[in-house]
Amino acid sequence: MTELRVHNLSISLDGYVAGPDQSVDNPLGKGGEQLHEWIFSPDATETDRRFIDRGREGIGATIMGRNMFGPVRGPWGDDDWTGWWGADPPFHHDVFVLTHQPRDPVPMAGGTTFHFVTEGIEPALERARAAAGGKAVRLGGGAATVQEYLRADLVDELHLAVVPVLLGSGERLFEDLGNVLGGWSCVEFAPSQAVAHVRLRRR
Amino acid sequence: MTELRVHNLSISLDGYVAGPDQSVDNPLGKGGEQLHEWIFSPDATETDRRFIDRGREGIGATIMGRNMFGPVRGPWGDDDWTGWWGADPPFHHDVFVLTHQPRDPVPMAGGTTFHFVTEGIEPALERARAAAGGKAVRLGGGAATVQEYLRADLVDELHLAVVPVLLGSGERLFEDLGNVLGGWSCVEFAPSQAVAHVRLRRR
Repeated sequence: MTELRVHNLSISLDGYVAGPDQSVDNPLGKGGEQLHEWIFSPDATETDRRFIDRGREGIGATIMGRNMFGPVRGPWGDDDWTGWWGADPPFHHDVFVLTHQPRDPVPMAGGTTFHFVTEGIEPALERARAAAGGKAVRLGGGAATVQEYLRADLVDELHLAVVPVLLGSGERLFEDLGNVLGGWSCVEFAPSQAVAHVRLRRR
Repeated sequence: MTELRVHNLSISLDGYVAGPDQSVDNPLGKGGEQLHEWIFSPDATETDRRFIDRGREGIGATIMGRNMFGPVRGPWGDDDWTGWWGADPPFHHDVFVLTHQPRDPVPMAGGTTFHFVTEGIEPALERARAAAGGKAVRLGGGAATVQEYLRADLVDELHLAVVPVLLGSGERLFEDLGNVLGGWSCVEFAPSQAVAHVRLRRR
Protein backbone atom coordinates (compact mmCIF):
# COMPACT_ATOMS: atom_id res chain seq x y z
CA MET A 1 0.00 0.00 0.00
CA THR A 2 1.29 3.44 -0.90
CA GLU A 3 2.43 5.13 2.30
CA LEU A 4 1.29 8.53 3.50
CA ARG A 5 4.20 10.29 5.19
CA VAL A 6 4.91 13.64 6.80
CA HIS A 7 8.45 14.85 6.14
CA ASN A 8 10.48 17.65 7.65
CA LEU A 9 7.75 19.01 9.86
CA SER A 10 9.67 21.50 11.98
CA ILE A 11 8.39 21.96 15.50
CA SER A 12 9.57 24.40 18.16
CA LEU A 13 10.61 23.30 21.65
CA ASP A 14 7.31 24.57 22.94
CA GLY A 15 5.39 22.55 20.38
CA TYR A 16 4.48 25.01 17.62
CA VAL A 17 4.70 24.24 13.91
CA ALA A 18 3.85 27.84 12.96
CA GLY A 19 3.99 31.11 14.83
CA PRO A 20 1.05 33.41 15.61
CA ASP A 21 -0.49 35.95 13.20
CA GLN A 22 0.02 34.17 9.87
CA SER A 23 -0.34 36.49 6.86
CA VAL A 24 0.68 36.90 3.23
CA ASP A 25 3.91 38.57 4.34
CA ASN A 26 4.45 36.07 7.11
CA PRO A 27 3.06 32.72 5.97
CA LEU A 28 4.64 30.86 8.90
CA GLY A 29 3.51 33.40 11.47
CA LYS A 30 5.63 35.59 13.71
CA GLY A 31 8.98 33.94 14.34
CA GLY A 32 7.92 30.90 12.32
CA GLU A 33 10.70 31.34 9.77
CA GLN A 34 13.15 30.21 12.48
CA LEU A 35 11.60 26.77 12.23
CA HIS A 36 12.89 26.27 8.70
CA GLU A 37 16.31 27.90 8.87
CA TRP A 38 17.99 24.52 9.24
CA ILE A 39 16.73 23.50 5.79
CA PHE A 40 18.43 26.43 4.10
CA SER A 41 21.47 26.64 6.35
CA PRO A 42 24.96 26.33 4.86
CA ASP A 43 25.77 24.39 8.04
CA ALA A 44 23.23 21.67 7.27
CA THR A 45 24.84 18.35 8.11
CA GLU A 46 24.75 15.09 6.21
CA THR A 47 21.98 13.96 8.55
CA ASP A 48 19.90 17.04 7.76
CA ARG A 49 20.41 16.50 4.02
CA ARG A 50 19.43 12.87 4.26
CA PHE A 51 16.10 13.86 5.80
CA ILE A 52 15.53 16.69 3.34
CA ASP A 53 16.16 14.25 0.48
CA ARG A 54 13.76 11.71 1.96
CA GLY A 55 11.04 14.32 1.57
CA ARG A 56 11.69 14.48 -2.18
CA GLU A 57 12.93 11.12 -3.36
CA GLY A 58 10.38 8.37 -3.81
CA ILE A 59 7.49 10.79 -3.42
CA GLY A 60 4.87 10.60 -6.19
CA ALA A 61 2.21 13.05 -4.98
CA THR A 62 1.62 15.64 -2.27
CA ILE A 63 -1.45 16.58 -0.23
CA MET A 64 -1.70 19.93 1.52
CA GLY A 65 -4.24 22.11 3.26
CA ARG A 66 -5.50 25.30 1.72
CA ASN A 67 -3.57 27.25 4.35
CA MET A 68 -0.30 25.87 3.06
CA PHE A 69 -1.28 26.57 -0.54
CA GLY A 70 -2.06 30.21 0.11
CA PRO A 71 -3.71 32.90 2.21
CA VAL A 72 -6.75 33.21 -0.09
CA ARG A 73 -10.08 32.59 1.67
CA GLY A 74 -13.54 32.10 0.16
CA PRO A 75 -14.05 31.54 -3.58
CA TRP A 76 -10.88 31.45 -5.69
CA GLY A 77 -11.90 34.57 -7.63
CA ASP A 78 -9.62 35.56 -10.46
CA ASP A 79 -7.39 32.51 -10.08
CA ASP A 80 -4.33 34.68 -9.75
CA TRP A 81 -3.02 32.78 -6.77
CA THR A 82 -0.99 29.74 -7.79
CA GLY A 83 0.82 29.03 -4.51
CA TRP A 84 3.83 30.44 -2.69
CA TRP A 85 6.42 28.75 -4.90
CA GLY A 86 6.55 30.74 -8.18
CA ALA A 87 6.08 29.42 -11.72
CA ASP A 88 8.07 26.21 -11.20
CA PRO A 89 7.10 24.80 -7.80
CA PRO A 90 9.48 22.30 -6.20
CA PHE A 91 7.04 19.38 -6.22
CA HIS A 92 7.26 18.15 -9.85
CA HIS A 93 4.22 15.93 -9.37
CA ASP A 94 0.48 16.17 -8.65
CA VAL A 95 -0.40 18.22 -5.60
CA PHE A 96 -3.84 17.84 -4.00
CA VAL A 97 -5.06 20.93 -2.15
CA LEU A 98 -7.89 20.41 0.37
CA THR A 99 -10.47 23.16 -0.02
CA HIS A 100 -14.17 23.87 0.19
CA GLN A 101 -14.03 25.94 -3.00
CA PRO A 102 -13.99 24.10 -6.33
CA ARG A 103 -11.42 25.17 -8.91
CA ASP A 104 -10.04 23.69 -12.12
CA PRO A 105 -6.61 22.07 -11.94
CA VAL A 106 -3.69 24.46 -12.37
CA PRO A 107 -0.74 23.00 -14.32
CA MET A 108 2.59 24.67 -13.55
CA ALA A 109 6.07 24.46 -15.04
CA GLY A 110 8.25 21.51 -14.10
CA GLY A 111 5.55 18.88 -13.82
CA THR A 112 3.62 20.20 -10.84
CA THR A 113 -0.18 20.32 -11.19
CA PHE A 114 -2.35 21.70 -8.40
CA HIS A 115 -5.65 19.83 -7.99
CA PHE A 116 -8.38 21.20 -5.74
CA VAL A 117 -10.26 18.56 -3.75
CA THR A 118 -13.56 19.49 -2.14
CA GLU A 119 -14.67 15.98 -1.12
CA GLY A 120 -12.56 15.64 2.02
CA ILE A 121 -9.38 14.01 3.20
CA GLU A 122 -10.09 10.40 2.21
CA PRO A 123 -10.96 11.11 -1.44
CA ALA A 124 -7.90 13.39 -1.58
CA LEU A 125 -5.75 10.51 -0.35
CA GLU A 126 -7.29 8.09 -2.86
CA ARG A 127 -6.58 10.47 -5.73
CA ALA A 128 -3.04 11.15 -4.48
CA ARG A 129 -2.34 7.42 -4.15
CA ALA A 130 -3.54 6.84 -7.70
CA ALA A 131 -1.41 9.71 -8.97
CA ALA A 132 1.69 8.60 -7.05
CA GLY A 133 2.23 5.61 -9.33
CA GLY A 134 3.52 3.30 -6.61
CA LYS A 135 5.62 5.94 -4.87
CA ALA A 136 4.75 7.41 -1.47
CA VAL A 137 2.37 10.29 -0.87
CA ARG A 138 3.75 13.21 1.13
CA LEU A 139 1.43 15.01 3.49
CA GLY A 140 2.27 18.71 3.78
CA GLY A 141 0.87 21.17 6.32
CA GLY A 142 -0.48 23.02 7.99
CA ALA A 143 -0.95 21.61 11.42
CA ALA A 144 -4.74 21.31 11.02
CA THR A 145 -4.35 19.12 7.93
CA VAL A 146 -1.79 16.84 9.57
CA GLN A 147 -4.03 16.55 12.62
CA GLU A 148 -7.03 15.62 10.47
CA TYR A 149 -5.14 12.77 8.80
CA LEU A 150 -3.66 11.63 12.11
CA ARG A 151 -7.09 11.54 13.73
CA ALA A 152 -8.39 9.45 10.81
CA ASP A 153 -5.42 7.11 11.39
CA LEU A 154 -4.32 7.47 7.77
CA VAL A 155 -0.69 8.50 8.33
CA ASP A 156 2.09 5.92 8.17
CA GLU A 157 5.05 8.02 9.22
CA LEU A 158 5.69 11.36 10.87
CA HIS A 159 9.13 12.92 10.63
CA LEU A 160 9.60 15.83 12.99
CA ALA A 161 12.56 18.16 13.22
CA VAL A 162 12.64 19.55 16.75
CA VAL A 163 14.10 23.05 16.54
CA PRO A 164 15.56 24.56 19.73
CA VAL A 165 13.60 27.80 19.61
CA LEU A 166 10.62 29.05 21.58
CA LEU A 167 7.72 30.64 19.69
CA GLY A 168 5.46 31.30 22.69
CA SER A 169 2.26 30.87 20.68
CA GLY A 170 0.99 29.78 17.28
CA GLU A 171 -0.26 26.50 15.85
CA ARG A 172 0.37 23.40 17.93
CA LEU A 173 0.75 19.97 16.38
CA PHE A 174 0.04 17.88 19.48
CA GLU A 175 -3.39 19.28 20.33
CA ASP A 176 -6.80 17.66 20.22
CA LEU A 177 -5.35 14.36 19.05
CA GLY A 178 -6.84 12.31 21.86
CA ASN A 179 -5.13 8.95 22.08
CA VAL A 180 -4.65 8.54 18.34
CA LEU A 181 -0.84 8.38 18.70
CA GLY A 182 -1.01 5.84 21.52
CA GLY A 183 0.27 3.12 19.22
CA TRP A 184 3.10 5.21 17.76
CA SER A 185 6.73 5.25 18.74
CA CYS A 186 10.08 6.63 17.70
CA VAL A 187 11.83 4.45 15.11
CA GLU A 188 14.75 6.81 14.53
CA PHE A 189 16.32 9.57 16.60
CA ALA A 190 18.99 11.37 14.61
CA PRO A 191 20.02 14.75 15.94
CA SER A 192 22.16 17.06 13.83
CA GLN A 193 23.95 20.17 15.01
CA ALA A 194 20.87 22.29 14.54
CA VAL A 195 17.80 20.12 15.11
CA ALA A 196 16.74 16.73 16.45
CA HIS A 197 15.23 14.54 13.75
CA VAL A 198 12.65 12.06 14.97
CA ARG A 199 10.85 9.49 12.84
CA LEU A 200 7.64 8.18 14.35
CA ARG A 201 5.60 5.22 13.16
CA ARG A 202 2.92 2.91 14.43
CA ARG A 203 4.31 0.15 16.60
CA MET B 1 23.43 36.95 42.43
CA THR B 2 22.90 33.28 43.11
CA GLU B 3 21.28 31.73 40.04
CA LEU B 4 18.08 29.72 40.02
CA ARG B 5 18.35 26.94 37.46
CA VAL B 6 16.27 24.03 36.23
CA HIS B 7 18.37 20.99 35.35
CA ASN B 8 17.55 17.78 33.51
CA LEU B 9 13.88 18.51 33.04
CA SER B 10 12.88 15.73 30.65
CA ILE B 11 10.11 16.59 28.23
CA SER B 12 8.37 14.34 25.72
CA LEU B 13 8.09 15.17 22.03
CA ASP B 14 4.49 16.15 22.59
CA GLY B 15 5.44 18.49 25.44
CA TYR B 16 4.73 16.55 28.63
CA VAL B 17 7.02 16.51 31.67
CA ALA B 18 4.88 13.89 33.41
CA GLY B 19 2.31 11.39 32.21
CA PRO B 20 -1.36 11.23 33.22
CA ASP B 21 -2.70 9.64 36.44
CA GLN B 22 0.16 10.32 38.83
CA SER B 23 0.01 8.17 41.96
CA VAL B 24 2.17 6.73 44.73
CA ASP B 25 2.99 3.75 42.54
CA ASN B 26 3.47 5.90 39.49
CA PRO B 27 4.88 9.24 40.63
CA LEU B 28 5.65 10.34 37.07
CA GLY B 29 2.27 9.28 35.71
CA LYS B 30 1.51 6.63 33.10
CA GLY B 31 4.45 6.25 30.76
CA GLY B 32 6.31 9.02 32.56
CA GLU B 33 9.19 6.75 33.58
CA GLN B 34 10.26 6.73 29.91
CA LEU B 35 11.19 10.37 30.33
CA HIS B 36 13.99 9.55 32.74
CA GLU B 37 15.39 6.36 31.27
CA TRP B 38 18.27 8.28 29.66
CA ILE B 39 19.52 9.29 33.11
CA PHE B 40 19.90 5.69 34.24
CA SER B 41 20.85 4.18 30.91
CA PRO B 42 24.14 2.30 30.55
CA ASP B 43 24.29 3.93 27.10
CA ALA B 44 24.39 7.45 28.54
CA THR B 45 26.96 9.41 26.59
CA GLU B 46 29.57 11.87 27.82
CA THR B 47 27.18 14.66 26.86
CA ASP B 48 24.39 13.15 28.97
CA ARG B 49 26.76 12.76 31.92
CA ARG B 50 27.97 16.34 31.63
CA PHE B 51 24.38 17.56 31.97
CA ILE B 52 23.57 15.18 34.80
CA ASP B 53 26.66 16.42 36.67
CA ARG B 54 25.73 20.06 36.11
CA GLY B 55 22.56 19.34 38.06
CA ARG B 56 24.64 18.28 41.08
CA GLU B 57 27.90 20.18 41.06
CA GLY B 58 27.86 23.79 42.20
CA ILE B 59 24.33 23.45 43.56
CA GLY B 60 23.89 24.62 47.16
CA ALA B 61 20.15 24.25 47.70
CA THR B 62 17.04 22.85 45.99
CA ILE B 63 13.45 24.07 45.76
CA MET B 64 10.62 21.70 44.83
CA GLY B 65 6.85 21.58 44.78
CA ARG B 66 4.95 19.42 47.18
CA ASN B 67 4.01 17.15 44.31
CA MET B 68 7.64 16.29 43.71
CA PHE B 69 8.21 15.71 47.43
CA GLY B 70 5.36 13.26 47.75
CA PRO B 71 1.77 12.27 47.09
CA VAL B 72 0.54 13.34 50.56
CA ARG B 73 -2.24 15.95 50.45
CA GLY B 74 -3.69 18.03 53.28
CA PRO B 75 -2.01 18.22 56.71
CA TRP B 76 1.21 16.23 57.10
CA GLY B 77 -0.34 13.97 59.77
CA ASP B 78 2.01 11.47 61.32
CA ASP B 79 5.08 12.82 59.51
CA ASP B 80 5.86 9.40 58.11
CA TRP B 81 6.46 10.68 54.61
CA THR B 82 10.02 11.88 54.11
CA GLY B 83 10.18 11.97 50.32
CA TRP B 84 10.66 9.41 47.55
CA TRP B 85 14.39 9.06 48.06
CA GLY B 86 14.90 6.86 51.13
CA ALA B 87 16.93 7.65 54.27
CA ASP B 88 19.86 9.29 52.43
CA PRO B 89 18.38 11.48 49.68
CA PRO B 90 20.68 12.47 46.81
CA PHE B 91 20.59 16.20 47.52
CA HIS B 92 23.10 16.56 50.41
CA HIS B 93 21.97 20.12 51.06
CA ASP B 94 18.91 22.09 52.18
CA VAL B 95 15.75 21.34 50.20
CA PHE B 96 12.83 23.77 50.36
CA VAL B 97 9.43 22.18 49.75
CA LEU B 98 6.60 24.54 48.76
CA THR B 99 3.46 23.66 50.70
CA HIS B 100 0.39 25.15 52.34
CA GLN B 101 0.81 22.88 55.37
CA PRO B 102 3.39 23.88 57.99
CA ARG B 103 5.78 21.21 59.23
CA ASP B 104 9.03 21.19 61.17
CA PRO B 105 12.24 20.67 59.20
CA VAL B 106 13.16 17.02 58.59
CA PRO B 107 16.89 16.32 58.72
CA MET B 108 17.95 13.23 56.77
CA ALA B 109 21.18 11.28 56.45
CA GLY B 110 23.89 12.64 54.17
CA GLY B 111 23.34 16.34 54.78
CA THR B 112 19.88 16.74 53.24
CA THR B 113 17.32 18.66 55.32
CA PHE B 114 13.77 19.14 54.07
CA HIS B 115 12.31 22.54 54.98
CA PHE B 116 8.62 23.26 54.45
CA VAL B 117 7.85 26.75 53.18
CA THR B 118 4.29 28.05 53.43
CA GLU B 119 4.99 31.70 52.54
CA GLY B 120 5.19 31.28 48.76
CA ILE B 121 7.77 31.04 46.01
CA GLU B 122 9.70 34.25 46.67
CA PRO B 123 10.38 33.60 50.37
CA ALA B 124 11.34 30.03 49.42
CA LEU B 125 13.84 31.41 46.93
CA GLU B 126 15.26 33.86 49.48
CA ARG B 127 15.77 31.08 52.00
CA ALA B 128 17.27 28.78 49.40
CA ARG B 129 19.67 31.50 48.24
CA ALA B 130 20.79 32.11 51.82
CA ALA B 131 21.28 28.39 52.36
CA ALA B 132 23.16 27.89 49.08
CA GLY B 133 26.24 29.72 50.37
CA GLY B 134 27.16 31.31 47.07
CA LYS B 135 26.36 28.26 44.97
CA ALA B 136 23.39 28.01 42.60
CA VAL B 137 19.86 27.02 43.62
CA ARG B 138 18.31 24.18 41.67
CA LEU B 139 14.61 24.32 40.94
CA GLY B 140 13.00 20.87 40.84
CA GLY B 141 9.53 20.01 39.63
CA GLY B 142 6.82 19.48 39.05
CA ALA B 143 5.66 21.42 36.05
CA ALA B 144 3.39 23.68 38.10
CA THR B 145 6.28 24.78 40.31
CA VAL B 146 8.56 25.50 37.35
CA GLN B 147 5.75 27.43 35.68
CA GLU B 148 5.18 29.52 38.81
CA TYR B 149 8.82 30.56 38.98
CA LEU B 150 8.96 31.19 35.22
CA ARG B 151 5.87 33.40 35.36
CA ALA B 152 7.46 35.38 38.20
CA ASP B 153 10.55 35.75 36.00
CA LEU B 154 12.78 34.31 38.71
CA VAL B 155 14.48 31.55 36.70
CA ASP B 156 17.92 32.12 35.17
CA GLU B 157 18.34 28.93 33.20
CA LEU B 158 16.18 26.09 31.96
CA HIS B 159 17.82 22.87 30.81
CA LEU B 160 15.47 20.58 28.95
CA ALA B 161 16.15 17.07 27.73
CA VAL B 162 13.82 16.41 24.82
CA VAL B 163 13.02 12.70 24.85
CA PRO B 164 11.74 11.12 21.60
CA VAL B 165 8.64 9.54 23.10
CA LEU B 166 4.96 10.45 22.94
CA LEU B 167 2.94 10.45 26.17
CA GLY B 168 -0.38 11.60 24.69
CA SER B 169 -1.46 13.42 27.85
CA GLY B 170 -0.17 14.51 31.23
CA GLU B 171 1.43 17.67 32.59
CA ARG B 172 2.62 20.17 30.02
CA LEU B 173 5.47 22.56 30.70
CA PHE B 174 4.70 25.13 28.00
CA GLU B 175 1.17 25.99 29.04
CA ASP B 176 -0.26 29.19 30.48
CA LEU B 177 3.10 30.92 30.34
CA GLY B 178 1.88 33.84 28.25
CA ASN B 179 4.82 35.69 26.78
CA VAL B 180 7.11 35.20 29.76
CA LEU B 181 9.67 33.30 27.67
CA GLY B 182 9.65 35.91 24.89
CA GLY B 183 13.10 37.09 25.92
CA TRP B 184 14.58 33.61 26.21
CA SER B 185 16.64 31.71 23.69
CA CYS B 186 18.69 28.58 23.26
CA VAL B 187 22.31 29.02 24.38
CA GLU B 188 23.30 25.39 23.90
CA PHE B 189 21.92 22.57 21.78
CA ALA B 190 23.72 19.33 22.54
CA PRO B 191 21.98 16.18 21.42
CA SER B 192 23.16 12.80 22.62
CA GLN B 193 22.19 9.43 21.23
CA ALA B 194 19.07 9.31 23.36
CA VAL B 195 17.86 12.86 23.95
CA ALA B 196 18.36 16.43 22.77
CA HIS B 197 19.76 18.66 25.50
CA VAL B 198 18.76 22.30 25.26
CA ARG B 199 19.89 25.06 27.59
CA LEU B 200 17.68 28.15 27.53
CA ARG B 201 18.44 31.52 29.09
CA ARG B 202 17.27 35.08 28.88
CA ARG B 203 18.76 36.89 25.91
